[in-house]
Amino acid sequence: MANGKKNGVAKRETAESMAKRQRDISVSEFFLKNRHLLGFDSPRKALLTTVKEAVDNALDACEEAGILPEISVNIEQTGAARFRVTVMDNGPGIVKSQIPKIFGKLLYGSKFHRLRMSRGQQGIGISAAGMYGQLTTGNSTIIFSKTKNKKTAHRMMVQLDTRTNNPTILKDEEVEWRPEFFPTREDGTPGRTITSAHGTSVEIEMEASYVRGRLSVDEYLKQCAIVNPHLQLHYRIVLPRKTGNGADENTTGAAEEEVIPWTTFSRAVTEVPEPTIEIKPHPHGVELGLLMKMLKDTPARTLKAALTHDFSRVSANTAQDICERAGLNPKARPVRIAHSESEALYKAVQETKLMRPPTDCLAPIGEEQLIAGLKKEINADFYTAVTRKPAVYRGNPFLVEVALAYAKPGANPDLGAEDQVRVMRIANRVPLLYMAGACAMTKAVSKVNWKSYGLPQPRNSLPVGPMVITLHMASVWVPFTSESKEAIAHYPEIEKELTFCLQECGRQLSVYLKRRTRLAEAERKKSYIIQYIPHMALGLKEMLELNDRQEQAVIDKLQDMLERTHLQL
Amino acid sequence: MANGKKNGVAKRETAESMAKRQRDISVSEFFLKNRHLLGFDSPRKALLTTVKEAVDNALDACEEAGILPEISVNIEQTGAARFRVTVMDNGPGIVKSQIPKIFGKLLYGSKFHRLRMSRGQQGIGISAAGMYGQLTTGNSTIIFSKTKNKKTAHRMMVQLDTRTNNPTILKDEEVEWRPEFFPTREDGTPGRTITSAHGTSVEIEMEASYVRGRLSVDEYLKQCAIVNPHLQLHYRIVLPRKTGNGADENTTGAAEEEVIPWTTFSRAVTEVPEPTIEIKPHPHGVELGLLMKMLKDTPARTLKAALTHDFSRVSANTAQDICERAGLNPKARPVRIAHSESEALYKAVQETKLMRPPTDCLAPIGEEQLIAGLKKEINADFYTAVTRKPAVYRGNPFLVEVALAYAKPGANPDLGAEDQVRVMRIANRVPLLYMAGACAMTKAVSKVNWKSYGLPQPRNSLPVGPMVITLHMASVWVPFTSESKEAIAHYPEIEKELTFCLQECGRQLSVYLKRRTRLAEAERKKSYIIQYIPHMALGLKEMLELNDRQEQAVIDKLQDMLERTHLQL
Repeated sequence: MANGKKNGVAKRETAESMAKRQRDISVSEFFLKNRHLLGFDSPRKALLTTVKEAVDNALDACEEAGILPEISVNIEQTGAARFRVTVMDNGPGIVKSQIPKIFGKLLYGSKFHRLRMSRGQQGIGISAAGMYGQLTTGNSTIIFSKTKNKKTAHRMMVQLDTRTNNPTILKDEEVEWRPEFFPTREDGTPGRTITSAHGTSVEIEMEASYVRGRLSVDEYLKQCAIVNPHLQLHYRIVLPRKTGNGADENTTGAAEEEVIPWTTFSRAVTEVPEPTIEIKPHPHGVELGLLMKMLKDTPARTLKAALTHDFSRVSANTAQDICERAGLNPKARPVRIAHSESEALYKAVQETKLMRPPTDCLAPIGEEQLIAGLKKEINADFYTAVTRKPAVYRGNPFLVEVALAYAKPGANPDLGAEDQVRVMRIANRVPLLYMAGACAMTKAVSKVNWKSYGLPQPRNSLPVGPMVITLHMASVWVPFTSESKEAIAHYPEIEKELTFCLQECGRQLSVYLKRRTRLAEAERKKSYIIQYIPHMALGLKEMLELNDRQEQAVIDKLQDMLERTHLQL
Repeated sequence: MANGKKNGVAKRETAESMAKRQRDISVSEFFLKNRHLLGFDSPRKALLTTVKEAVDNALDACEEAGILPEISVNIEQTGAARFRVTVMDNGPGIVKSQIPKIFGKLLYGSKFHRLRMSRGQQGIGISAAGMYGQLTTGNSTIIFSKTKNKKTAHRMMVQLDTRTNNPTILKDEEVEWRPEFFPTREDGTPGRTITSAHGTSVEIEMEASYVRGRLSVDEYLKQCAIVNPHLQLHYRIVLPRKTGNGADENTTGAAEEEVIPWTTFSRAVTEVPEPTIEIKPHPHGVELGLLMKMLKDTPARTLKAALTHDFSRVSANTAQDICERAGLNPKARPVRIAHSESEALYKAVQETKLMRPPTDCLAPIGEEQLIAGLKKEINADFYTAVTRKPAVYRGNPFLVEVALAYAKPGANPDLGAEDQVRVMRIANRVPLLYMAGACAMTKAVSKVNWKSYGLPQPRNSLPVGPMVITLHMASVWVPFTSESKEAIAHYPEIEKELTFCLQECGRQLSVYLKRRTRLAEAERKKSYIIQYIPHMALGLKEMLELNDRQEQAVIDKLQDMLERTHLQL
């Protein structure tokens, strides 16, 4: 402590001395220091975040290109606290010039500047994973990519120069490469290798740790398969053999690769979801400052044309109305609109009734597919699902859907009758695992009164029972509470829709539970009566002097009667 | 809905068509769309965040320049949902060339690239406030600044070009201007105007709303005064006069300005805190990738010199040891160190015992000042405070301190005996108001067993009682859970220190509460006995035939005896 001053001298600053120390902070430097904001706050979470970002990108690319996605996730432990993650897909591939930027630059991508439902939306994820790998191991991100039209593939090693937030290419070569996948059949035997003529593979080595459980890569991939029934997913994790002295730094993995089998989540449907549609911003979701900026940047020559072309739900007539209401000339040049005029325009827009934003840009998973996905992975007795109609928050269309799976108490060891229900949160088909407590979805489940649907529920908590609830929000822009995209922000419009959707499912659950209770009651009575039928038959036999055949006929008739009464219950 | 497809056509993408849509996302565009990450998710919070960022900057600048801070916060309502915030300080001012960047560019500043305790640390805050103002009103940020050495001041109007994240200067002029402050005396009369020869004023108009209460600007400024006893703060909020038809768009504010008085939080001490010291990173907090980068960037010519100069706690001898352990030549050129060599170096660093980082870089508020601050604003009966010794997380030195104020039940109407205790969270002297539930500080208070110190406490909750707890964390880098800097991340080392500190305060509280209980008990006995003293005296008088004077003497003596016994309790 005594020699602390050696490290730096505290001096009185002036405006001039302070000016000398001012400087740019690159966005990479910012997120490197604040990497917990991106989901790299612990070794365990780092592994999940990396897999998640790579799989999300692969799925987005396949769907946009109309390709039925085939994805493999290969995780190999390479040291005591080191893992190599390789995610491969049969997507359209990436053209050579784009590879370095996509993997070696934060805030770069095609998804941020559009209103369109997709998994990625920020242009941060995969390059942040590469940056984290580089920070903790010094290694580059290795990318293989082959596009349809090229004969050979590219192999690139990319790093991110954090000072400038630009990629550095360490190696760039043409190679013979095609994506290959190794499915495992349901009986556990290896299936036929699948080869694709195009695709991408990304490999990142990083400091990480692998722990099974609710927050693991395994759970993420399982949920991913549930909500993306068109996805075929191959997964394996290669851990070093226990050699008695713990993890071995020198494990090459080569020996194990032959023995560790892949797990295949087979696809349940063979149709690619229709690509989603990009929409223009809705006028009611645009602030004054943004409106002014849009007028400055529009290619349209007149105010009326700008209103019609740059926004959704503004027809030529509506645009005319808005201009008149604002006291502006519809033929005015948009760039010439003064500050005070744009305020009048903004007010006029707010006062004009408009159709709600178009909603065919949203691709729900759908009630049937939600149930099919749940049935595939969750063994239960009652399934239901509700997809709500689209609604709007801050000008953005969105929709929610909810599915339930309820198991008979004791029937599914994973679903304890005394445990809180399990909540699976999904946003644009991406499962969210961390930060459940901060998420609008968890809050919505806790706020619904489940007691009225027949489930016990401690105050302000999740209900209790052998049940899984899946919630999905689809939107052109999902409002996450942080860059790591783990929880949905508490917009009242979103919470309201979630609540209605949960209540609809709850009512169906309630019908099932009541019927089940009634049936159980009848079953109890029936089994009680059934014991006495032979005794009654015997009594009748003696009184009426029946023979054995007649006695048996009486028993059959009585049982038949009981069955019929029972059915009516 | 039917014409949705008009807005955009879903087409099958290829690698080539996707490449065309890839593009840079400027950091401003990113945060404009994600402005809730910066604390601009509601109009109410926007007002607080703006005041907070401006006041933080003013305090940092004053302290770095060794100036006793005088700050005014003036909030005027300018429309139904519009406010103008003006924050003025007597700091060193800003040189002209830096003004546009500081106020019109995100990720720019002097505080990010150093390890030094300060309020600001990101280079985002104030420019984000300006960007939000611009987005919601279209108006510029207006800055006045005068440095010591210049005769005239600068007035600038700055906007942020979100596409490039660069400032646009709309006006730049030399003006006659000095900061002026209008104190109000304790008796409510106006004091003498204070003028400064230097300082800065920043004015931002924005969509906002003003609500009193625990999350208000008022509460923030009050807490700010408590934890910065050297600060003199003038505050007023000018709301439009109720004219019957609600808020009036045309309120000029001029008429009201004369009648709305300022509230002055006078300073309690007249010493500027010693400027804090910048430190170098501690080797044990540096990852492999960062170590490699530092070796690439170092100005030092040898490996040994790089280790000694660029890190704290590495002496020449230690550097020699590290090199030998790693099998590297101490005279090797740092930029020439190969990947495998730096891995060896990293391992050697981790295995070498080093002194903990220097801690005189931390400026605690101090036990005395914490208590003085609390006494000024919170009326209570028992105060205590504990400042812990510095500790380390991820190579960063930090320290925590805790102060308590306990009021007799019923004595302070603000502190209900049946309410949860109030928790004031402070990081580097900045009060944190929002996101209490997500903060390590709140968690630490809930985890301490307050029952053993005499306070009721529901399971896993804050304790109950007429009490305020102030927690302060001081560090060269506070790990916030989001860019809006509202909650501290859950590092185990930080939680441990907070717990120990709370327990120390708890023990002192427990001594006070026990003594109070004992005293109350004795008081009860005393008042019971005292009733009988005159009767005893009368009895003695009759038995011993005393005169009135003697009787009185007996009463006095008995009472005196009782007092003395009581005191011994």
